[in-house]
Amino acid sequence: MSDAQLTLLRHGKSVWNQENRFTGWVDVDLAEAGRQEAAAAAAAMKQAGLHFNAAYASHLKRALATLWVVLEEMELMWLPQCSDWRLNERHYGALQGLDKTETTQKYGEEQVRQWRRSYAVPPPPTTEAYTTAAGIVAPASESLKDIIPRVQEVYQQRIVPLLQQQQSVLIVAHGNSLRALMKIIEGISDEAIMQVEVPTATPHCYRLDSKLQCVDKTILNRN
Amino acid sequence: MSDAQLTLLRHGKSVWNQENRFTGWVDVDLAEAGRQEAAAAAAAMKQAGLHFNAAYASHLKRALATLWVVLEEMELMWLPQCSDWRLNERHYGALQGLDKTETTQKYGEEQVRQWRRSYAVPPPPTTEAYTTAAGIVAPASESLKDIIPRVQEVYQQRIVPLLQQQQSVLIVAHGNSLRALMKIIEGISDEAIMQVEVPTATPHCYRLDSKLQCVDKTILNRN
Repeated sequence: MSDAQLTLLRHGKSVWNQENRFTGWVDVDLAEAGRQEAAAAAAAMKQAGLHFNAAYASHLKRALATLWVVLEEMELMWLPQCSDWRLNERHYGALQGLDKTETTQKYGEEQVRQWRRSYAVPPPPTTEAYTTAAGIVAPASESLKDIIPRVQEVYQQRIVPLLQQQQSVLIVAHGNSLRALMKIIEGISDEAIMQVEVPTATPHCYRLDSKLQCVDKTILNRN
Repeated sequence: MSDAQLTLLRHGKSVWNQENRFTGWVDVDLAEAGRQEAAAAAAAMKQAGLHFNAAYASHLKRALATLWVVLEEMELMWLPQCSDWRLNERHYGALQGLDKTETTQKYGEEQVRQWRRSYAVPPPPTTEAYTTAAGIVAPASESLKDIIPRVQEVYQQRIVPLLQQQQSVLIVAHGNSLRALMKIIEGISDEAIMQVEVPTATPHCYRLDSKLQCVDKTILNRN
């Protein structure tokens, strides 16, 4: 019996990645450079002989646009694809939209490092409550720890049943929702996860055994 | 209780629509003019206040690309979307790839009219058996009558359950799979369906009552 395969892909560079702004749940577009990264990631996956049975993405357009570029490049536009808000980036609270350098000048390096890289410290909450176009009530702010339950839930409910059938699944999501997934799949500790960085549009390919334990992990370089 | 809504949309012009060639299951790209038509159709649907709960397309990229343009323009990229081969265009058999004018010169107008517009006369079968990338064994040739069962099946299995919950569903497909759907929904006779033409990227919007009978049909003009 062959192993299940799970490929994690962070979206290509967004317009706000390029402008060095905190994004979170703000639905910014993929930058042109991000589209090119996504196409290069697709070429690398094709070259590695990857095939998928299903694809998942968050509700945010930088992830969905990345997925669409990948599916088009891999001639897999017909693939079953699902979007789920539980794969969204963590909510960056009151920092959303702010320039990262200006925020560091205002609050100090250590505070901003805590907000960006700590496991359990959420950014200051936003005071503007809102509901997304898909009807999801946005949280006020989320730490990496805060999003583990929602990421765990979507993984268990929607991805695990496919992996248990030895399928090959692609997930296109965000720096922090992918760190949460890696923490779950690889059993990374609260401390160690702080050092894990997920570069844009770089496929992380897992082979999982029948108990969904990781037996192999390959990071594909874009050409 | 509000009515269910079903919007049918034929893909925008494909490269072979422009080249006047029979297409069928050949997976040709959307032409640039087709992308523009799709965006204009999206604008018309937005202006008409349409919203969708789910979207369906065939397995063919001219339909999927049309859907993606529409979802992007309508800010609905996160919408649940499914592709199903049973919404594919009918298979044009040995005519696939041939120039329509040359075919008419060779076989005569009446024969070609039969192949293109009759209800039950299939085009000559292709001799090249093949399986699609999605693992679907292609038929040798299909008349409009031949595709009614597969279109009926996908409608009953996947679309009707959503409509019974008063949802609003978008289907992006092809001239003949949409004629089949219209025949089913509107109860059009075998004779009358021969006169029905479905223009590219022109939304056909149905309101259906609780028994899924058509209570209103509106065709939106693109601007």
